[in-house]
Amino acid sequence: MKVDGKQMRPIWLDESSQIVKVIDQRQLPHDLVIADLTTVDKVIEAIQDMVVRGAPLIGATGAYGVYVAAVNTLGFSGRDSDFITESERIKAARPTAMNLIWAVDRVMAELSHGETAEKKIASAKAAAAKIAELEAENCRQIGLAGLAPIQAIRQAKGGKPVNILTHCNAGWLACIEYGTATAPMYTAHDAGLDIHIWVDETRPLNQGARLTAWELGKHGIPHTIITDNAGGHLMQHGKVDMVIVGTDRTTRTGDVANKIGTYLKALAAHDNGIPFYVALPSSTFDWRARDGLRHIPIEERDPDEVHLIAGELDGCQHMVRISPANSPAANPAFDVTPARLVTGLITERGICKANEDDILRLFPEYR
Amino acid sequence: MKVDGKQMRPIWLDESSQIVKVIDQRQLPHDLVIADLTTVDKVIEAIQDMVVRGAPLIGATGAYGVYVAAVNTLGFSGRDSDFITESERIKAARPTAMNLIWAVDRVMAELSHGETAEKKIASAKAAAAKIAELEAENCRQIGLAGLAPIQAIRQAKGGKPVNILTHCNAGWLACIEYGTATAPMYTAHDAGLDIHIWVDETRPLNQGARLTAWELGKHGIPHTIITDNAGGHLMQHGKVDMVIVGTDRTTRTGDVANKIGTYLKALAAHDNGIPFYVALPSSTFDWRARDGLRHIPIEERDPDEVHLIAGELDGCQHMVRISPANSPAANPAFDVTPARLVTGLITERGICKANEDDILRLFPEYR
Repeated sequence: MKVDGKQMRPIWLDESSQIVKVIDQRQLPHDLVIADLTTVDKVIEAIQDMVVRGAPLIGATGAYGVYVAAVNTLGFSGRDSDFITESERIKAARPTAMNLIWAVDRVMAELSHGETAEKKIASAKAAAAKIAELEAENCRQIGLAGLAPIQAIRQAKGGKPVNILTHCNAGWLACIEYGTATAPMYTAHDAGLDIHIWVDETRPLNQGARLTAWELGKHGIPHTIITDNAGGHLMQHGKVDMVIVGTDRTTRTGDVANKIGTYLKALAAHDNGIPFYVALPSSTFDWRARDGLRHIPIEERDPDEVHLIAGELDGCQHMVRISPANSPAANPAFDVTPARLVTGLITERGICKANEDDILRLFPEYR
Repeated sequence: MKVDGKQMRPIWLDESSQIVKVIDQRQLPHDLVIADLTTVDKVIEAIQDMVVRGAPLIGATGAYGVYVAAVNTLGFSGRDSDFITESERIKAARPTAMNLIWAVDRVMAELSHGETAEKKIASAKAAAAKIAELEAENCRQIGLAGLAPIQAIRQAKGGKPVNILTHCNAGWLACIEYGTATAPMYTAHDAGLDIHIWVDETRPLNQGARLTAWELGKHGIPHTIITDNAGGHLMQHGKVDMVIVGTDRTTRTGDVANKIGTYLKALAAHDNGIPFYVALPSSTFDWRARDGLRHIPIEERDPDEVHLIAGELDGCQHMVRISPANSPAANPAFDVTPARLVTGLITERGICKANEDDILRLFPEYR
């Protein structure tokens, strides 16, 4: 998407230097810092220290990491075994990131035994690029699919701006291009439709205020940051026309696990008759899970994410403590929104209702 | 209530020095700083700069402010007209604070024309103390009334700890003693009942994380701070037995306007069959209002409260910016929870259902 008029992705291969570059997302929204992933250690650090975040981007970083490993081993007359060891190290950088393991394996599988080092490096580069393109294309399709409900609301409103509320960052920063929840927004905006986005700040890590607001602002999409508390009030007063959020995991019955607080917005949308859409690449379906509340484990994260807030002060980033020194905090990272509160799932194959029958209509191979 | 074992109020008259003292709430939870209100200017500053906050405490501060005005004018052979001018200045410190105007007028009304200066000062002091006691007594009654549903839940749980969720700070810091929403908690805890409080941090100003957590911790009540996003998830998993919140304004039909985000918790409680109580002194009833969404105006506050977060860093308080420099923010301060989502109103006269008939059963004088 655009950053001050220039097309940008969160990861890319610089053509002239052949160096893998990423946006250091820890510095956003205050500074746009580009990091060079020149070594496997730097790739692993980027994944572990959240320089990059979001499943699709972590996968793409792993894929490009295999290319970096090939350059740094085979490119310096290293042995195949060194290359494999380095690639395995990347795969282990975040053991729970399914996309990372999948992407590294997929790039490795593209390399034929007995090829020249040069050929292997070229194949790794091409395979990594292909994975990035695949993620981008999925998101582009999600954007096209999600355009229809926005257009319908616009028509019903007689052309007045469509107000969309979103939670957290399911944007291009996490997904190469378009994002998932943001894809219909970029597609609508680029098609000339008047939209305005309510951006939930999304405590504790403020991905909405920090990343989604930055993305939308840089692309030129009108938006307003709100606290996570404000959405219900705005819905009560007709200031929200639809909600679009992402999902980390989706059951075959249409329950969605997304960033903590999503469920509260779904309840408010339902109470006010506002459509609540969830955008997702089909890779987030957990086809074995039927009951989100029972089958999706919820990560409990470090309480310090609640106690401490990161922000900018005098040009530098700092953490301030908001709570008493002796008060404990709890920090569940996700919640489950039951399918009954979801108007529709926006996938790369189109929109379906959040029930098993309609999901399987789009994805018959999982019947 | 107790602070490290010592009984404390947010405002008191120091017997030995005859100086009015308040807790500087801007410094909480990081430092417990006591401010001396020795002049009318200091009283006005305390009200305007939020050294004190909460309608009952602002009222009590205004009341004690009249005593300070009497000491500083009449006590130094000042004229009655000076005293009246100074008292009027206090009344105007926050024009929308109904309680302030009411309290100043009430103290003034206690002073008889023609009394000696000494007598007037003594009368002002006594009248201010009476107002503070009245607020404290109302809250004590709310605490007694709210004990019953906690006891009922405790019995149903076979004596296991009762988990109560609260939003914002409707605590003793705002209300002299007990607080409103917190009154049943203090009463239950002091009666030896096992309770645990989920404290919503309450963005944007974090009154929950800053003040409620501090209050509960200092009194020794087990509690856990959570983001405003987390409550729904906890309710889905049976970790919340009841919700108790305060209210800024209540319609005669039982709609309640409280800190932004209250409505979302009411929806989640309703969706999970969890009782949702609102605690209030009857002074928060707006007897003319019938429809909260239509009749209660919602204050839109400074967007910088969303952009900037105050916290402690290296022993000092700082503000950090969490959002991009060019992104706008909106900051509605309250929302309205419709009566249909409210299980009961806990008042100084007992508990009633959130409907006009049952409210008027307790307050027949407003029929």
